[in-house]
Amino acid sequence: MNGITLVALDGIGEVQAGDFIIQHLITGLAASKIELADGDVVIVTSKIVSKAEGRVVPCDGSDEAKQALIESQSRRIIRRRGTLRITETHHGFICANAGIDLSNTDSGTAVLLPLDPDKSARRLRNDIARELGREVAVVVTDTFGRTWRHGVTDIALGCAGIIPVRDLRGTTDAYGRVLEATEVAVVDEIAGAADLVLGKASHSPIAIMRGLRPEFFGEGSIAERVTRRAHDDLFR
Amino acid sequence: MNGITLVALDGIGEVQAGDFIIQHLITGLAASKIELADGDVVIVTSKIVSKAEGRVVPCDGSDEAKQALIESQSRRIIRRRGTLRITETHHGFICANAGIDLSNTDSGTAVLLPLDPDKSARRLRNDIARELGREVAVVVTDTFGRTWRHGVTDIALGCAGIIPVRDLRGTTDAYGRVLEATEVAVVDEIAGAADLVLGKASHSPIAIMRGLRPEFFGEGSIAERVTRRAHDDLFR
Repeated sequence: MNGITLVALDGIGEVQAGDFIIQHLITGLAASKIELADGDVVIVTSKIVSKAEGRVVPCDGSDEAKQALIESQSRRIIRRRGTLRITETHHGFICANAGIDLSNTDSGTAVLLPLDPDKSARRLRNDIARELGREVAVVVTDTFGRTWRHGVTDIALGCAGIIPVRDLRGTTDAYGRVLEATEVAVVDEIAGAADLVLGKASHSPIAIMRGLRPEFFGEGSIAERVTRRAHDDLFR
Repeated sequence: MNGITLVALDGIGEVQAGDFIIQHLITGLAASKIELADGDVVIVTSKIVSKAEGRVVPCDGSDEAKQALIESQSRRIIRRRGTLRITETHHGFICANAGIDLSNTDSGTAVLLPLDPDKSARRLRNDIARELGREVAVVVTDTFGRTWRHGVTDIALGCAGIIPVRDLRGTTDAYGRVLEATEVAVVDEIAGAADLVLGKASHSPIAIMRGLRPEFFGEGSIAERVTRRAHDDLFR
């Protein structure tokens, strides 16, 4: 039988600038009585990655300060409505307000996206190999809206040790027919799945997925395989 | 600890027009030695729902026949590139080629989307309650592309017994701060998660998710809660 399990780690406290995510992971694993295994996927929300990497900046609650911050993190503005901006970030992500978490500006700060989320994922993957002796995949997630469908979902900003988009072209389906043009963004499906146990109001920023088939694991980055280039885009 | 499990059912054969999905579900549960429990989520690919509902039509492999079929299933064409059409279906879904599976046109047929996927989900949910005595949620899935990101993911076309978009506005996060505008399309996250065990080349069209927290369950349809109306859309 083909199955997976997904658990949110308990016991992870607030993350501070300069922290190593590996230390929070170890705390969470111990509190949850889980030992990491080879072939697990460690899913981490970008919020704690940003905090650990010091991507927290001053921002008073004014519209002017927010807009200036959004523009500083954007390559271009794609759409405007009221104070909402759909922007293309310097990474090439297209999302609301350059992915900046402005929900805490009352206390004078805002959280920016990690500078290089693939690199953040690779660093954690390497730290896990060195400190825990396990070969895992890592996915760094964030919450994006979608065109044409209400509601946000979690997607992958960065990854390591996993094939972000599986190319199934040329393989056959259950009835022996050759699949035409199916490239599956499994890394985004993993990110969304993890949100079901983490959730926006959860106390946990790290989930562990176990049981994913071996063919999912390999190399590839979000920047190279998932982010669509402007010339390849019908909606920019 | 907050966790879920997800398994693909074994042993489900080809689905024919006039079949009841409940019968295939029962076959798969028996072959997989799983008993359905209250609070499970049954995830079914729309392909078998379409087949059971007789949504298979003749289509030779010509571009003309394919285009005519795509237009017949579309309210409007949003974008064109080569033979690809991004269309708005009569349901209001925006996807490639009106969601029609044209991969099997060599043998003279194409598979259309279910007419009313929410209704298909409600029917299966009712059949499960009556035949198996279990109160579950049902999600009917399909595979859609995304603007701005490469690769397809599975999303929900229809659902029953689950709150498709959870409104977390006004709830507090892990640090007691009130969340601003977070409506989470959990039903699409469930659909994507299921694809990790079903997969495009898998033999299984049905997955069972267990362990989802009680607050996910309730009422709501994809048509009313997820499909964005044109006037509310920045990209149409």
